[in-house]
Order: sequence, then C-alpha cells, then structure tokens
Amino acid sequence: MNASADLSSVKAMVFDVFGTVVDWRSSLIADFAQWSAKRGVSGDWTGLVDAWRGAYVPSMNEVRNHPERGYLALDHLHRQSLDKLVAQFGIKGLNEDDLAYMTLGWHRLQPWADSVSGLTRLKRKYTIGTLSNGNVALLNNMAKHAGLPWDLILSAELFQHYKPDPETYLGAARLLGLQPGQVMMVAAHNNDLAAAQKHGLKTAFVPRVTEYGPLQDKDFKADGNWDVVAADFNDLAARMGC
Amino acid sequence: MNASADLSSVKAMVFDVFGTVVDWRSSLIADFAQWSAKRGVSGDWTGLVDAWRGAYVPSMNEVRNHPERGYLALDHLHRQSLDKLVAQFGIKGLNEDDLAYMTLGWHRLQPWADSVSGLTRLKRKYTIGTLSNGNVALLNNMAKHAGLPWDLILSAELFQHYKPDPETYLGAARLLGLQPGQVMMVAAHNNDLAAAQKHGLKTAFVPRVTEYGPLQDKDFKADGNWDVVAADFNDLAARMGC
Repeated sequence: MNASADLSSVKAMVFDVFGTVVDWRSSLIADFAQWSAKRGVSGDWTGLVDAWRGAYVPSMNEVRNHPERGYLALDHLHRQSLDKLVAQFGIKGLNEDDLAYMTLGWHRLQPWADSVSGLTRLKRKYTIGTLSNGNVALLNNMAKHAGLPWDLILSAELFQHYKPDPETYLGAARLLGLQPGQVMMVAAHNNDLAAAQKHGLKTAFVPRVTEYGPLQDKDFKADGNWDVVAADFNDLAARMGC
Repeated sequence: MNASADLSSVKAMVFDVFGTVVDWRSSLIADFAQWSAKRGVSGDWTGLVDAWRGAYVPSMNEVRNHPERGYLALDHLHRQSLDKLVAQFGIKGLNEDDLAYMTLGWHRLQPWADSVSGLTRLKRKYTIGTLSNGNVALLNNMAKHAGLPWDLILSAELFQHYKPDPETYLGAARLLGLQPGQVMMVAAHNNDLAAAQKHGLKTAFVPRVTEYGPLQDKDFKADGNWDVVAADFNDLAARMGC
C-alpha cells in the first residue's frame, strides 16, 4: 500500500470487470469449445477469442473518432468485430442464432475464484459497483449468471463514453453523490487506474497475470503509485478493513 | 390476475420505490421526531412531511415546464421544497447541517414489512431493479440502509426525465436489453402503471393503503387492467412463480 494513502474517505468501490472480476478468455474458449462440439461446427476458438479481444480497443476508437455516428453499446461492437473475424478465421456454417449466441458469450463469463467472496466482504462496508465498458444489460446478465453481488451497475453506456474517457470516472462519482476522492477504482490494468487517479479517484490494483494467457505482455505488477496493491479480492477486502 | 396475461415473457421487474417499497411518511415523521428532540428544535413534523410530499409533483412539473434550466436530481428538488416549507411552518434554529440531514432523510426510509422478503424471492427468478424518480445516490443509499437486494438501480436521473414521461419506462427496457413486454412495472400507484402499460410494459399493482396516512384519497385498489394484482410483495412473488 502507498504509505501516504488515506483510505478513510472511501465510500464506494467501482470495479473494472473484464479481466479484473471475470476471466473472459478461459470462459469464452471453454464455452465455444463445448457449444461447437454440440453444434457441429469447428474453428480455432482460442485464436478467434484472442483476436476478438484484440479488436476491442480499435472498435472503441472507431466510435470515438466518428462521434457523428453516435455511441454504440459494447454488445454492438462485439457483434461487428465477430462478423469480420468469423470470415477471417474461415469458420463456416454459422447462422444468425449462432452469431447471437457467441456475442452473448460475453454475458456468460466466469468470475475468478476469489471474486465473489471478496466482493461479498467488501459489500458489507462499501457500495460496490461495476465501472465497465460493458453495457448495462451485459453487466446485469453477467452478474445474475456469475453471482456477482453488485449494489449497482455503472457502465460506459450511461455516460455515452468509454473508459478511459474522463466522463466515465467523473460520471460514476457524480451518480454516487460522492467526491472523486471518495470513490476507489479497482482494476487489473494500470492504464485504467492511471486515468482514474488523474481525475481524483482512489486506486487499487489487483494483478490478473493469466488474463491474456500466453499473450499477456503487461500488467504483471503495479506500475503506478496506487493507493492499494492487493494479491486478490480477499486480500483487497482485508486491506480495506472488511 | 388479468386472465389473459401471459407472464412467461417477463425477464425483469422494475419497482416504483416511494410508497411501493418504502414507507416514506412514517419513516420521515419518526426520524424527525427523534432527531428534533435531541437537536432541541420543534415543529409540526407530520404537517411538514405531508406538505413536502405534496410539493413533489409540482416541483417536477416546474422542471418539465422549464427545460432550458436543465434536469434536477430529486435530492435537489427536495431541498428546494424544504427551504420554503421550513419558513412556511415557522421552524426556527435550523442550520445548513440540519437542512442537509433532513433532506437526506429520504435516503434513510424504512421498507414495508414484506418488501425485503418479497424482493429476495423475486430476485431468484427475475432481474429486480428500481425505476424511481429518486436519484441514483438516494436509491443506492436507501438500499444499503434498508437492505433492499436490487440487482441494479434504474432512476429517472439516468434518462433526465421523471416518471411518468415515456423516456423512463422505455429507457429502462432499453438499458436492460429487453423489449418493453419483457419488463414488468410494479407500483402502488395506478397512474404509474397506466403510463407503463401505455408504453408496452407488463404491470403489477400492490396496494399500500396507509402510504399517505389519513390523507390517502386514492390507490386503495387497482383501477386498471393490470396483469397482476397482489396483496403484498410475498403474494407478488408467489403469483410470479417464485
């Protein structure tokens, strides 16, 4: 922990979700492997899932660069990217229902082993909410599926801006009726925390070193002056006095 | 129950809060009576609370009639109305902290006896959320205080429109990723249900015949063709298959 951090002002903790709370990569690969066997289609699901996540930041930048086209929910970006990748990976025989099923795979992600127990502890003392680029329906469906005990769902969709745009961090504090310094951003990604800190939020880093599997090339450790660095969500709960 | 109602399509239930889930009148009167004795101020708290609620619809209409001034969160409307009523009721000796405490009384409301148990049952099968004119911070603080197990907080604040404006009912369905007919509005107020039904939502009426105390002059019973009429939230859970 940052020795100078005064955490007594924190009233709410908001969480990055993909990678921080849920293991999107293993979840999607397992889901598609099982589903495709029954469905009788084949493909390089690992390659497709990695490429799909690779399309995430570029797809948001496309929206940022064309504000006249309007904001798009992440479900929509996921589907746009999937349509291209299915062709690129030469996967044959998928119909509209299949593509919808795959896109909704992001609603069915599994939590890391410590996520539910850590969040349940933190909820006793703090308001806990998402602060994710996932749209509200995605985050709500995921919470019901995975048993994530959020007090409320905060999403980029509510602000019509994706993280790390300032509108998301400041908008979360505003909706919570709190000053930015009363809100802590929790993430496995240093860049998310850097943006949150720049706008006055408190920060907590929890490493998820297998998030990208063999492709992981960053976020093995904290590389900023975060208020808390915790091994997992139960360690985070202990450090936050829960 | 409306004999023709097909409830199998319902995926999410959204709830009016003031009066339907929480007993604002008894809660505020008891809160202020207890607080004022300690604080050493006196006033007609029953009269003030009734007049405060009486100012609710006119204060929202004032915002509707002056869109150029922008949307105001309910906390702000409550405070504006309180400032006038304190003078009108001749209550002396209140400072800024006192007025803030009283305004936040709306965050500390108590649930009706069946609210938490009924919601807990409904949450097993349905997404349950608020759909209230209360702002997000108010609804979240109330949920933490009263133990209301919402999956998510939906508020007029997110749509910058108060109920019964169509943007609220249709906005809730949109954020949930559902068709209006997959969402059920639950309220103790026939006018709220009439607006929800007009925009395609399913409807459930739960009477709260003591909400306004001796001033109650309507909503003693269902006066529309609602999909479900239940005696309380546990009866609602039973009727919804929970």
